[in-house]
Amino acid sequence: MSGRYDIEGLKARLSGIRTEENPALVKQKSRDFFWYSPTLKRQLESVTGDIVVSPKTRDEVIATLAAAHALGIPVTPRGTGTGNYGQAMPLSGGIVLDLSGFAQVLEIGHGRVVAEPGAVIAAIDKVTRADSRQEMRLHPSTYHTASIGGFIAGGSGGIGSIRWGGLRDAGNIVSLEVVTMEASPRVLTLGGDDLHKVSHAYGTNGIITKVEMPLAPAYAWVDVIVGCETLRGAAELANMLGEQDGLLLKELAVVAAPVPHDHFKRHQKFLPREKHLVMAMVADFALDPFLALVRRHKGAELLMRSDTLSPEEAKGLPPVFELSWNHTTLRALRDDPTVTYLQVLYPFPNQVELVARIHERFGDELPAHLEFVKFDGKVTCFGLPLVRFTSEERLEEIMAIHEEMGAPIFNPHRYTLEEGGMKQTDEVQLAFKREADPQGLLNPGKMIAWEDPSYDYKSGKTFLFRGLAEG
Amino acid sequence: MSGRYDIEGLKARLSGIRTEENPALVKQKSRDFFWYSPTLKRQLESVTGDIVVSPKTRDEVIATLAAAHALGIPVTPRGTGTGNYGQAMPLSGGIVLDLSGFAQVLEIGHGRVVAEPGAVIAAIDKVTRADSRQEMRLHPSTYHTASIGGFIAGGSGGIGSIRWGGLRDAGNIVSLEVVTMEASPRVLTLGGDDLHKVSHAYGTNGIITKVEMPLAPAYAWVDVIVGCETLRGAAELANMLGEQDGLLLKELAVVAAPVPHDHFKRHQKFLPREKHLVMAMVADFALDPFLALVRRHKGAELLMRSDTLSPEEAKGLPPVFELSWNHTTLRALRDDPTVTYLQVLYPFPNQVELVARIHERFGDELPAHLEFVKFDGKVTCFGLPLVRFTSEERLEEIMAIHEEMGAPIFNPHRYTLEEGGMKQTDEVQLAFKREADPQGLLNPGKMIAWEDPSYDYKSGKTFLFRGLAEG
Repeated sequence: MSGRYDIEGLKARLSGIRTEENPALVKQKSRDFFWYSPTLKRQLESVTGDIVVSPKTRDEVIATLAAAHALGIPVTPRGTGTGNYGQAMPLSGGIVLDLSGFAQVLEIGHGRVVAEPGAVIAAIDKVTRADSRQEMRLHPSTYHTASIGGFIAGGSGGIGSIRWGGLRDAGNIVSLEVVTMEASPRVLTLGGDDLHKVSHAYGTNGIITKVEMPLAPAYAWVDVIVGCETLRGAAELANMLGEQDGLLLKELAVVAAPVPHDHFKRHQKFLPREKHLVMAMVADFALDPFLALVRRHKGAELLMRSDTLSPEEAKGLPPVFELSWNHTTLRALRDDPTVTYLQVLYPFPNQVELVARIHERFGDELPAHLEFVKFDGKVTCFGLPLVRFTSEERLEEIMAIHEEMGAPIFNPHRYTLEEGGMKQTDEVQLAFKREADPQGLLNPGKMIAWEDPSYDYKSGKTFLFRGLAEG
Repeated sequence: MSGRYDIEGLKARLSGIRTEENPALVKQKSRDFFWYSPTLKRQLESVTGDIVVSPKTRDEVIATLAAAHALGIPVTPRGTGTGNYGQAMPLSGGIVLDLSGFAQVLEIGHGRVVAEPGAVIAAIDKVTRADSRQEMRLHPSTYHTASIGGFIAGGSGGIGSIRWGGLRDAGNIVSLEVVTMEASPRVLTLGGDDLHKVSHAYGTNGIITKVEMPLAPAYAWVDVIVGCETLRGAAELANMLGEQDGLLLKELAVVAAPVPHDHFKRHQKFLPREKHLVMAMVADFALDPFLALVRRHKGAELLMRSDTLSPEEAKGLPPVFELSWNHTTLRALRDDPTVTYLQVLYPFPNQVELVARIHERFGDELPAHLEFVKFDGKVTCFGLPLVRFTSEERLEEIMAIHEEMGAPIFNPHRYTLEEGGMKQTDEVQLAFKREADPQGLLNPGKMIAWEDPSYDYKSGKTFLFRGLAEG
């Protein structure tokens, strides 16, 4: 791809800002966890940028964008590259804008924190916990590596969503500062409805340079694992626990047998192979009512609680949140590279019934993994079922059957915003792109509405970006 | 009533414990806000105890119960007397056990507090806020006067219920210490499922001597009042706001026109007479998305936000929570003694439709007052509608129509647990009474299941306790 852009001219304009051109290192910084998907693995394997630019201040971001704009070089922003859909992969090459060094925590208030976009979420929590026993409401399972800016630009929810819903929900982001991609980049502060312009937009329409996020109390969270005899029983128990308004939970998931025993290696001694798990993070002072509710549930059995483990038992055990969300997928993939996954919504109020019906239909081809969340004011669950992959055609068929049965798919095997999301143009994000990136230089190829306004989402085809086709 | 019990013998056994026999003072301490109800006013007007005993320690409580047990004197416990159903009124006379002086805050942890039962909720918050910016999750509108023990024994929820549900919900009480009514009173600590034995039991089966409650962060809450053109519009707006999982609210209510203008005197300048209100307490950092949502709602108009008032405007304004729950009723009653109220549940998911239909039917006879809450994991609303009272017969008729239309009534015109609640025996509470108060000396007349096991709740009659009939 090299040679398409005036990289030497760029470097001349960026003196003092760190850059990297070593092809191996550039390629490394051009990738994320896209390889969870066999489809994306095939499509994106050869994607790489031309240069990595690593600004550490807002002024350096502005200088980089101004230079790139002047030279017509695409810019694909990136935090720490923990996404799963190629969000931060530069489909047209050019600049990989590595924001991982732009990472200070700037200010802590009662209920909020202000940070730079590259700050790793666990690192923010470390500071806010020490300051005032507060922590982020939401984080992905890649807590220890994911940046807050990347989470906002490319994530949707995760640990904490059983309490707070998702990043899209009003109040889960307080404000964002973004810089536009223009000859003279502007600095804008967005709040309220305007947050939708850039959150979960993959950095296609502005570079986040500051985030203000709400904080929750950092309680002593206890990991609890409960075993159930049936998947339905586990889903019913989790749903009931999720609906307890006074019970402080931070995470609530179900993973069907035999996945936990087979792939949660360090926990294996606690996990009979035939048990379907309910996994939770429970505030220490909520443990007593939590366990009382579990005891009342037929067929449920406490398998592990982290607060009563001996030091030897606890040694080397990852936290429950690293068995959840896409870490469940990761653990299975590590053992069995033929496994992949889906993202499913089981809509309220039929979630438990729908889970049971769908998984009866697919059996062991599709081991269930449910993440309980608040969604539009109700408790329901998302699914990240594992798929024992055979072919892309069968994968498509499995997804079509889900949709037919009433469970919408958020396709994790697509790199565009629309195909991975609502399968329609997001007019708010598109309008903001016209304003903030009129040349279309930010993360090209990810917003179909920009690349091909006449694209038919109902065609049944996969959108293929010309930048990739050319590549 | 005096003369029935050996009060002199009691005093001899209670040396060192404060007592009061002045009939005017005893009568004062034998009452609560029962007069909100014309029915209870008629039935309970002459109720009084024989003596007030005011223990300040657990040992003094134990000594009092042992003495009362030995002499067969009934004991009716009481916090600060802010109930509305005669919960703490001594139907058989005897001892009024005034716990308002047994009121220390004992211990504060991260997410919990331990206190004595007589501690006023606002006083607990004052200590926990100063200690660690924490506060109680739930409180009644009588925040500044209600005791925590009284709230647990006689209340159900209130401010905070839009976030945490009610006191009955798992996790909203951590543990309780109770003393039994036996020759040698036992001290029991209850947690988990056992909490149901004594919470909302009006002190009929044990005296609470210590409470452990969860704490939430004490954010800077902003009072916001929004005006809507229609009751349905206000209910829809409130319901939508309540369903925002990321929006931190502490209170969310609707009061129909013209009640706010007519009875919220100090706020009157903000309140056009024809506007139906949505009133909320919003965390300061959630105000921006809250107002963005309000702006999107057709016909909604911001009438007041407490954070931008000038000192003159703010002067003398009560907090919004003192316009809510039974303070709404109180403000109307002060101006118009013929007003009374109901307690209604509008079950999810038809709450808005049901509110609209019921209030269309009754018109100005029944001005709407809705309190939005979490209930079994969903958002719905309770109603505390005002009733322009004409007769007890019409009041019964209005209640019957609610039940017919699908809105269960929790009758605030009854002094028994069952008639004010689920209209059936609470087997857990009854069983615990057999164990903890075998002589039936604690708060006689309030638990029908104990007084008359064969009572038919479906008879349509009102239970009349023999102690009252004798009186």
